[in-house]
Amino acid sequence: RIMRPDDANVAGNVHGGTILKMIEEAGAIISTRHCNSQAGEPCVAALARVERTDFLSPVCIGEVANVSAEITYTSRHSVEVQVNVMSENILTGAKKVTNKATLWYVPLSLKNVNKVLEVPPIQYARKEQEDEGKKRYEEQKLDRLETKQRNGDVIFPVINPELHTVGYSQSSLIHLVGPSDCTLLGFVHGGVTMKLMDEVAGIVAARHCKTNIVTASVDAINFHEKIKKGSVITISGRMTFTSNKSMEIEVFVDADPFVDEPRERYRAVSAFFTYVSLSKEGKPLPVPQLLTETEDEKRRFDEGKGRYLQTKAKRQAQVQQAAR
Amino acid sequence: RIMRPDDANVAGNVHGGTILKMIEEAGAIISTRHCNSQAGEPCVAALARVERTDFLSPVCIGEVANVSAEITYTSRHSVEVQVNVMSENILTGAKKVTNKATLWYVPLSLKNVNKVLEVPPIQYARKEQEDEGKKRYEEQKLDRLETKQRNGDVIFPVINPELHTVGYSQSSLIHLVGPSDCTLLGFVHGGVTMKLMDEVAGIVAARHCKTNIVTASVDAINFHEKIKKGSVITISGRMTFTSNKSMEIEVFVDADPFVDEPRERYRAVSAFFTYVSLSKEGKPLPVPQLLTETEDEKRRFDEGKGRYLQTKAKRQAQVQQAAR
Amino acid sequence: RIMRPDDANVAGNVHGGTILKMIEEAGAIISTRHCNSQAGEPCVAALARVERTDFLSPVCIGEVANVSAEITYTSRHSVEVQVNVMSENILTGAKKVTNKATLWYVPLSLKNVNKVLEVPPIQYARKEQEDEGKKRYEEQKLDRLETKQRNGDVIFPVINPELHTVGYSQSSLIHLVGPSDCTLLGFVHGGVTMKLMDEVAGIVAARHCKTNIVTASVDAINFHEKIKKGSVITISGRMTFTSNKSMEIEVFVDADPFVDEPRERYRAVSAFFTYVSLSKEGKPLPVPQLLTETEDEKRRFDEGKGRYLQTKAKRQAQVQQAAR
Repeated sequence: RIMRPDDANVAGNVHGGTILKMIEEAGAIISTRHCNSQAGEPCVAALARVERTDFLSPVCIGEVANVSAEITYTSRHSVEVQVNVMSENILTGAKKVTNKATLWYVPLSLKNVNKVLEVPPIQYARKEQEDEGKKRYEEQKLDRLETKQRNGDVIFPVINPELHTVGYSQSSLIHLVGPSDCTLLGFVHGGVTMKLMDEVAGIVAARHCKTNIVTASVDAINFHEKIKKGSVITISGRMTFTSNKSMEIEVFVDADPFVDEPRERYRAVSAFFTYVSLSKEGKPLPVPQLLTETEDEKRRFDEGKGRYLQTKAKRQAQVQQAAR
Repeated sequence: RIMRPDDANVAGNVHGGTILKMIEEAGAIISTRHCNSQAGEPCVAALARVERTDFLSPVCIGEVANVSAEITYTSRHSVEVQVNVMSENILTGAKKVTNKATLWYVPLSLKNVNKVLEVPPIQYARKEQEDEGKKRYEEQKLDRLETKQRNGDVIFPVINPELHTVGYSQSSLIHLVGPSDCTLLGFVHGGVTMKLMDEVAGIVAARHCKTNIVTASVDAINFHEKIKKGSVITISGRMTFTSNKSMEIEVFVDADPFVDEPRERYRAVSAFFTYVSLSKEGKPLPVPQLLTETEDEKRRFDEGKGRYLQTKAKRQAQVQQAAR
Repeated sequence: RIMRPDDANVAGNVHGGTILKMIEEAGAIISTRHCNSQAGEPCVAALARVERTDFLSPVCIGEVANVSAEITYTSRHSVEVQVNVMSENILTGAKKVTNKATLWYVPLSLKNVNKVLEVPPIQYARKEQEDEGKKRYEEQKLDRLETKQRNGDVIFPVINPELHTVGYSQSSLIHLVGPSDCTLLGFVHGGVTMKLMDEVAGIVAARHCKTNIVTASVDAINFHEKIKKGSVITISGRMTFTSNKSMEIEVFVDADPFVDEPRERYRAVSAFFTYVSLSKEGKPLPVPQLLTETEDEKRRFDEGKGRYLQTKAKRQAQVQQAAR
């Protein structure tokens, strides 16, 4: 579809959240279609996880985003979907790869939303494809368990914070979940959640560096719990780490299902977003260093540095491998 | 894309206007891409006309609409695009053709919006395709001239109208044209206008028959004049004709460019929409007859009857041809 | 226009904010049109104030809202607009008055946004109309000055608050001002701000009483300062008073214009919203009493009680006058 002014920031760059939402919609369509391809209980595919994805080049207003999706692996209860986004300038004809994302979906019964159904197996062209998919499946399963344990953290408000501290830029947003945010099962689309997460992360980043910013990458996102229509969700973001030219922001999604049920607030999703600051010519700008004050902030900064160095090393390894 | 609750009426049927908007977006993308395919002045394709289109089957919330578009003819300054819409129930896998529409676009220069550029010619597989296209081109050109003359009419409000009269159901809506309604050139997308027209026509139809209604077809729509960002548009609809099971509604779009220029209000678009009333099981219901009071109303009723009988005759001819 | 699922809460009642946004759009159109009716500098009417308005009856999904607007007074630099909203059930034909609102607009030059232009005078049918308008004009001018002084207050976050305290239900929302939120001048539409304010107030009310709630009335809202495109606005709400069956919520709008200019955060708008809780049958429910803890909370509770009793007395006087 054509990117509109509403999809973009003041500098004309399309929000990463808009792209994430389109990716998730494509993934939900293809996996729901696949899971219903054999006679049986009708179901809807629910997003369980998005693997780390890089935003390779910014998309601008007026460009057309082409989204294509393919099922690359199926386990007994989950589907792996590979989604590619190409942006096309229909005036010049120029095309660029914008995103490659991997998503995991789980089929939930339309009759009983707590029942996970079986996924019809796909055919692989080569045996290695199945083996590699299985490896990816096992890896993400492990990672999901790990993040679940990390999830107790809460963002406390800070009064009169100083410039460039964590408290200065941290932000939160509440959203009442309406009907168009939801699937047929009455639960929030993963893509809607990711769009709101990107919005909060973007505000944190802009508050910190006070310049034009764009999403550079999103770490793996795990959807631990479903969020029901009518819930109020609180999306909170705080900066965890800055390198010379990038900012890492941790985002939490907490759900309050207060209308229907007497249940407590719970953590539904959490993730790390990385942002860069761009000049008017689209060049990356230096970022003010994050000032850490408490022990927890220092620990999170070091953990963020670890993730940053790991990603950097991985990318260099890929470049070297490609050069061989 | 997946149809959401907001795209649909209370009974779950997707508004014809939502479909028309998707059709137009697909047409605008393919024709803008084509017109920029040769080096030259960059341009944006503006919608000039939509041929009569039938809504073959209603689309429901949760279904996926697949839109495909193809360029079928080019004249020196215009492009004919054929758009097909299929609705797909991703739970059952069932697919239905929903719409086949033909749209005409004209390339306007990005630098000078009043300059119409030349269209790169397409290749035809067979000579007959070109000849048939040329015939369609000449026909629509004639029809556009004709409608232009019919356009002086205004809808006056009626005080305390009686049930089932024209005055009882007539309705109008005003809309302030915002940035996301517009193309790169700062003019309203044809699809946005059609969506609003369908909304008004739907209110007229529902007021008349007080049941669940859906768009059955839209007559050819000509876009006489562009509408600029910041304009206020008034969309007015009145019922012109009823058969046993259908209602014809005439819709006008008038633009007030009051902020920027000292120009008078002008008629930008006009069209006829046909609606049917559906029972809960999706069967067509009888429609109360329209009561005509003035001479003009009687004349318009007769003209509407003419269009109705003509369409009916055409359809029967097609059925007979198909049966041979 | 027809009310859609996204305009409403889970119980099908349309959000007060949606109605306020429609009212403001109608007011902005009619006053911009009027201020441009004489040759001269083109201008856009900016919302300066909304008088107290009551929501007389809830509107439901599928109903049509008819909005009509009329200019009732002009001073040298401002326009008073009276807007009426009727909801119509198009299936039954039943109509109800939903709102009567009075809005004040000021014409700002399109070339120089800081220049307030002169308003063309309107003709009055009777001399008394002009005199009464002048009286209303003077009254609102006074009130605007008063509120300006009251505006330093900030909502501080509370950690681990108890049920039914002020801290328990207070909420805030951040919003990045995008292009479709803005007028031609690049400033946020008053209606967009009011819709967000109602959203926050609604969440505060729902958190407090955990039932289905609807907007009952909005106190006079003054728009002290414009908010520019690209700003981040923080909308915060806290409960100030509860009667047996109503809740009063104070809402602040603070703007951070951090992208373009090095200006400090400023208070742009503030207002009081009153909510009631409704049973499934649409009857008002008792509301848990607000627990006040600090001196400030107790003072605000008393002030709220004052406003509540004053409004109640006014309404009774009107009823008695009508009965005579």
